[in-house]
Amino acid sequence: MASTFGHLFRITTWGESHGGGVGVVIDGCPPGRRFELDAIQAELDRRRPGQSRITTQRQEPDQVEVLSGVFEGQTLGTPIALLVRNKDARSADYDEIRTKYRPSHADFVYDAKYGIRNWMGGGRASARETIGRVAAGALAQQILKEDCGTEIVAWVKQVGNMASTTNVDTVTRDLVDANIARCPDGETAERMIQLIDQVRKEGDSLGGVVEAVARNVPPGLGEPVFDKLEADLAKALLSLPACKGFEIGSGFGGVTMRGSEHNDPYYPEEGRVRTRTNHSGGIQGGISNGEPILLRAAFKPTATILKEQETVDVDGNATTLKGRGRHDPCVLPRAVPMVEAMMALVLVDHHLRQRALGPST
Amino acid sequence: MASTFGHLFRITTWGESHGGGVGVVIDGCPPGRRFELDAIQAELDRRRPGQSRITTQRQEPDQVEVLSGVFEGQTLGTPIALLVRNKDARSADYDEIRTKYRPSHADFVYDAKYGIRNWMGGGRASARETIGRVAAGALAQQILKEDCGTEIVAWVKQVGNMASTTNVDTVTRDLVDANIARCPDGETAERMIQLIDQVRKEGDSLGGVVEAVARNVPPGLGEPVFDKLEADLAKALLSLPACKGFEIGSGFGGVTMRGSEHNDPYYPEEGRVRTRTNHSGGIQGGISNGEPILLRAAFKPTATILKEQETVDVDGNATTLKGRGRHDPCVLPRAVPMVEAMMALVLVDHHLRQRALGPST
Amino acid sequence: MASTFGHLFRITTWGESHGGGVGVVIDGCPPGRRFELDAIQAELDRRRPGQSRITTQRQEPDQVEVLSGVFEGQTLGTPIALLVRNKDARSADYDEIRTKYRPSHADFVYDAKYGIRNWMGGGRASARETIGRVAAGALAQQILKEDCGTEIVAWVKQVGNMASTTNVDTVTRDLVDANIARCPDGETAERMIQLIDQVRKEGDSLGGVVEAVARNVPPGLGEPVFDKLEADLAKALLSLPACKGFEIGSGFGGVTMRGSEHNDPYYPEEGRVRTRTNHSGGIQGGISNGEPILLRAAFKPTATILKEQETVDVDGNATTLKGRGRHDPCVLPRAVPMVEAMMALVLVDHHLRQRALGPST
Amino acid sequence: MASTFGHLFRITTWGESHGGGVGVVIDGCPPGRRFELDAIQAELDRRRPGQSRITTQRQEPDQVEVLSGVFEGQTLGTPIALLVRNKDARSADYDEIRTKYRPSHADFVYDAKYGIRNWMGGGRASARETIGRVAAGALAQQILKEDCGTEIVAWVKQVGNMASTTNVDTVTRDLVDANIARCPDGETAERMIQLIDQVRKEGDSLGGVVEAVARNVPPGLGEPVFDKLEADLAKALLSLPACKGFEIGSGFGGVTMRGSEHNDPYYPEEGRVRTRTNHSGGIQGGISNGEPILLRAAFKPTATILKEQETVDVDGNATTLKGRGRHDPCVLPRAVPMVEAMMALVLVDHHLRQRALGPST
Repeated sequence: MASTFGHLFRITTWGESHGGGVGVVIDGCPPGRRFELDAIQAELDRRRPGQSRITTQRQEPDQVEVLSGVFEGQTLGTPIALLVRNKDARSADYDEIRTKYRPSHADFVYDAKYGIRNWMGGGRASARETIGRVAAGALAQQILKEDCGTEIVAWVKQVGNMASTTNVDTVTRDLVDANIARCPDGETAERMIQLIDQVRKEGDSLGGVVEAVARNVPPGLGEPVFDKLEADLAKALLSLPACKGFEIGSGFGGVTMRGSEHNDPYYPEEGRVRTRTNHSGGIQGGISNGEPILLRAAFKPTATILKEQETVDVDGNATTLKGRGRHDPCVLPRAVPMVEAMMALVLVDHHLRQRALGPST
Repeated sequence: MASTFGHLFRITTWGESHGGGVGVVIDGCPPGRRFELDAIQAELDRRRPGQSRITTQRQEPDQVEVLSGVFEGQTLGTPIALLVRNKDARSADYDEIRTKYRPSHADFVYDAKYGIRNWMGGGRASARETIGRVAAGALAQQILKEDCGTEIVAWVKQVGNMASTTNVDTVTRDLVDANIARCPDGETAERMIQLIDQVRKEGDSLGGVVEAVARNVPPGLGEPVFDKLEADLAKALLSLPACKGFEIGSGFGGVTMRGSEHNDPYYPEEGRVRTRTNHSGGIQGGISNGEPILLRAAFKPTATILKEQETVDVDGNATTLKGRGRHDPCVLPRAVPMVEAMMALVLVDHHLRQRALGPST
Repeated sequence: MASTFGHLFRITTWGESHGGGVGVVIDGCPPGRRFELDAIQAELDRRRPGQSRITTQRQEPDQVEVLSGVFEGQTLGTPIALLVRNKDARSADYDEIRTKYRPSHADFVYDAKYGIRNWMGGGRASARETIGRVAAGALAQQILKEDCGTEIVAWVKQVGNMASTTNVDTVTRDLVDANIARCPDGETAERMIQLIDQVRKEGDSLGGVVEAVARNVPPGLGEPVFDKLEADLAKALLSLPACKGFEIGSGFGGVTMRGSEHNDPYYPEEGRVRTRTNHSGGIQGGISNGEPILLRAAFKPTATILKEQETVDVDGNATTLKGRGRHDPCVLPRAVPMVEAMMALVLVDHHLRQRALGPST
Repeated sequence: MASTFGHLFRITTWGESHGGGVGVVIDGCPPGRRFELDAIQAELDRRRPGQSRITTQRQEPDQVEVLSGVFEGQTLGTPIALLVRNKDARSADYDEIRTKYRPSHADFVYDAKYGIRNWMGGGRASARETIGRVAAGALAQQILKEDCGTEIVAWVKQVGNMASTTNVDTVTRDLVDANIARCPDGETAERMIQLIDQVRKEGDSLGGVVEAVARNVPPGLGEPVFDKLEADLAKALLSLPACKGFEIGSGFGGVTMRGSEHNDPYYPEEGRVRTRTNHSGGIQGGISNGEPILLRAAFKPTATILKEQETVDVDGNATTLKGRGRHDPCVLPRAVPMVEAMMALVLVDHHLRQRALGPST
């Protein structure tokens, strides 16, 4: 299951940062849906490096090619294979990393796990692998929108120690994309951009927090035990490169509350059961309750920095390594479409499960 | 997959809080291992209600019966079925919850998902469901110990706003179990116990944080993409009742560091590659690096409280509900063996995967 | 996946012939269905040994206990755990087989695979393991009947070299159960019974063929590639003890036909697309076409015989072995409910998949 | 799971006969293995149309491109993506099949299942889909050879009513490929070729039987219940286009034997446990016993013929259809590498499972 995600709407990604390309096979997409290649490409453009001055300047157009599963603009119900060729492979940059393990990269653990690695780049640990997820996630978002009216919006909540506040009921993707920090709080966004610029010049990097909401999720999605909706979301988010933490609803902050504060009282509203607060983050007992699903994901500072670092070589000798060339000082703005994609993949899978296993109507 | 967890070492739990019992089928346990029923029962005793004055006083002996898969004290390699009968079912207590949704319980979402629910209790959302996980986790811990020397220890790090500090390199299960708070910082433990006692009398409840370490995990466990070790751990932990957050290594705290601080420098030590710091929490790029795996899980305050709360009934009318009888003011001490079990289930599964798919020797 | 079958309607069986019992966990049964315990017990009674003079005289009541997943006579949508205790365990019979491998039994391969086996019986290879399948299959048949009007009927077509002919459009379960051979061709049934009686007295055993039909299967079930409906049926049937062959539609007989004879011409009938012949056996390209699904399964003669046979002991020395006590001279009549159950499990799983992934309506 | 096969060595195929191409993602290939592109291409050449005068004259070079998972001639342990572009797409041929269902093709059932189909060709039902399987199977055969010395050889046993006999202990791939019928019995092969030639001129088609052996399969592969080795082989074979039947060992022929004839007596030979006969076909109780695995698969005559046939159009009206252009009068010779590939995929998966779950050494 290593490279496959999902139970009914299943995606299998493949490809390394260096090699023929990267791609995804989407198996289990319902038939007869419009296939909006432009919408998929747009999400890839939001994900790709080089899209603004605060991300890595590595230039990759990431043009997607559809190889199967689509006919006359509609999904066939059969596997949709998408391919993005690799372009900007400058292996000359990579000579040193053939023999020295980059700290907090996956070089060492790949050798430990496989006894071999493609030392020309990050292999499967490269953020390029997320291309397939983002493409598949765009399709998943479209299906959720069509079937349930679900809207998913993620944004940069925090960069370094610079935090912002956002109204989760009203935030839109347009608001998020209004600035290159993808932080809908415009003033904080400006300061984030300055901070990223400064850290970039220092050859250093920053972490941060992405927050996300899914609105109009029907009640009843998720399973009561292992495949709890929040458990699947946690796995989805933690499977993104550099993600180190996950919270749903009140999260870590909720542990200081009493049960009498934390419980979300129910009340009736226009024939629906609503909750007055949403400490549950839209999920109770693993199952969506119809309130907005609200989560946060912590991303550590990018491992690639342009400073000298202590490390060992492949023979186990102490040495030092200094990154050169281009680096991504802050992955947070590019993580936004990744988070949205992963949320959509989880939700669409549970939406299809509920079609199969929900009560008869 | 709803009630199944794991890919090679697979467990399937079944059972509701009210009904014939709860249990687990463990499929994929290697053959020829000693089957230590006492060790399994001991973990169930650490999990069960009524074990100390600060947990719920609901009394359930939780005696486990082995139905299959074991012969002359050894595992057969075939499914191990374990059964625990339900005992303390007092359905008279449950009349009101037949018609009123308990806030932040799963009653409402079960009706939304299934159109039916066993109103005599929490159904699959009951903590009783974790009996099967804890039993299977005890077996998983034994296998990890035998094969890799892996030790897993979890403890209560925080209750409400009362936090403690623990040496993750030296903490042992004996230290943890030395007090009923399961907090190895004895002084803080005393204060936690007082706090829980007080909140119990108020009919209210507390949340907290469990921290856990896995030592002697061999490098190379975990997959580079979706089944990253931290992703599977996150899913495992978030699948526990009341868990709202997960952190690995530096977690949310790491987002304020620079890359130059956060990266873990490698150095050689006695033929091994070690890291000077462990902000990665023992996992890089989804794969264990041989350092201790360190994680934290946030648990919200228990939903069952003995105070009047606003809610709606099954017909959608506004009403109020006041819990009666016994409640669990703080689930944290009982969550400790659950966290250990879930970690072990993830690790043993990846250990077996690596046996299958690792490099030939 | 060893002990689990199905993707959405998933069953996990457990248990050996000797030990606490055998059982099944059914995960993925839709909620709110009547749970007909009597219908399940009736199928177990059709499967159990000792039901007639031509099966083994081993007496096991096979009384099923429902442990979870059912409330007030309805399915909850959560796992349904069923348990049947072992009764007639006479380990005294089994002393010799502790040290000698019974020819064409699984004793030797269990030792080869696991390095250990429960020598008190057939372990998982015992026909007792099918109890869980038959119970789950009864539930699956009920759901197919309710949702699609699907009827599944299997019967004994051949015993030894004694073959019969049956009208697959009109055969009913009542006709099949009208005699203890479960062959709806009454005259042939009489001769089969005599043959089985004779072979039983000789301490020998017989093989045969079970034929089966599923009528009113909606078009569209099955997948175009690996999970072709006939592929899943083949796996289901070959997973039954003693099954050595499978045919769908024309099967092996169809290989001597020309394409112009074998192709099933389409014609319109009352708004439906029908075929004039059914060499396809109701499945084309892996997907049901609405015609009756027709298959046959070959069962070898039972391995347990009461004659002296050449074999080796567990130390690899040549020896002989002579079975004693009771044996089942012909498993065919008891295989009938097993075949029906396996067909139902495959069909209900694809029925639920189609609910999830079929075109929107 | 529709387009995925295998549990540890997992392949996912994608692509239609018309569209960008077809391919496969192989996930779970052990790392550090030589990647023999020539061997893979050689198997594709054995599978492709136009390779001899008795197969379809459709010309497709089927040149495979490696997109990922391979580095410096070795497998990385990460997904191996293979792509074969579509070439010979002559959609002008296909105008009529847009509106008329071809008898015994999948056109009608695709419309029934998906509500949409790519009418330019057979979609996923096209034999082109098997390209990915054959490529992956070549890699699987190499691993089995390296790890266990396993050899898999398949051949055409029967075409129409013309049957041959082959020594399963000595047959080699060279012997099989010595003639274009792929029947190692040279005399019968000649007559098969004449028959196919004649039927081709008549615009008709032939079915037949492929037989196959796997030698040097270690004892202990396969699972005792649902994932019996013969059950997985049956599914694998029945998932090939046009396959209608499967036999292992004695198969349907074994049903007329008595148990005393059918049981395979054990005897010791050079420290190994062997059987005097092999009616079991190398598998007992679902698990390999070390003897050659012997199976047969029945293939119906190809559905595409150049004769007028009765059918209905997409609006449900009666009509007729006459195939034009090129057709494949007998798929049997090309099915040989497909059968070998599917056997290898099943065996390598169970080989890896046994590495994970076998007894500790």
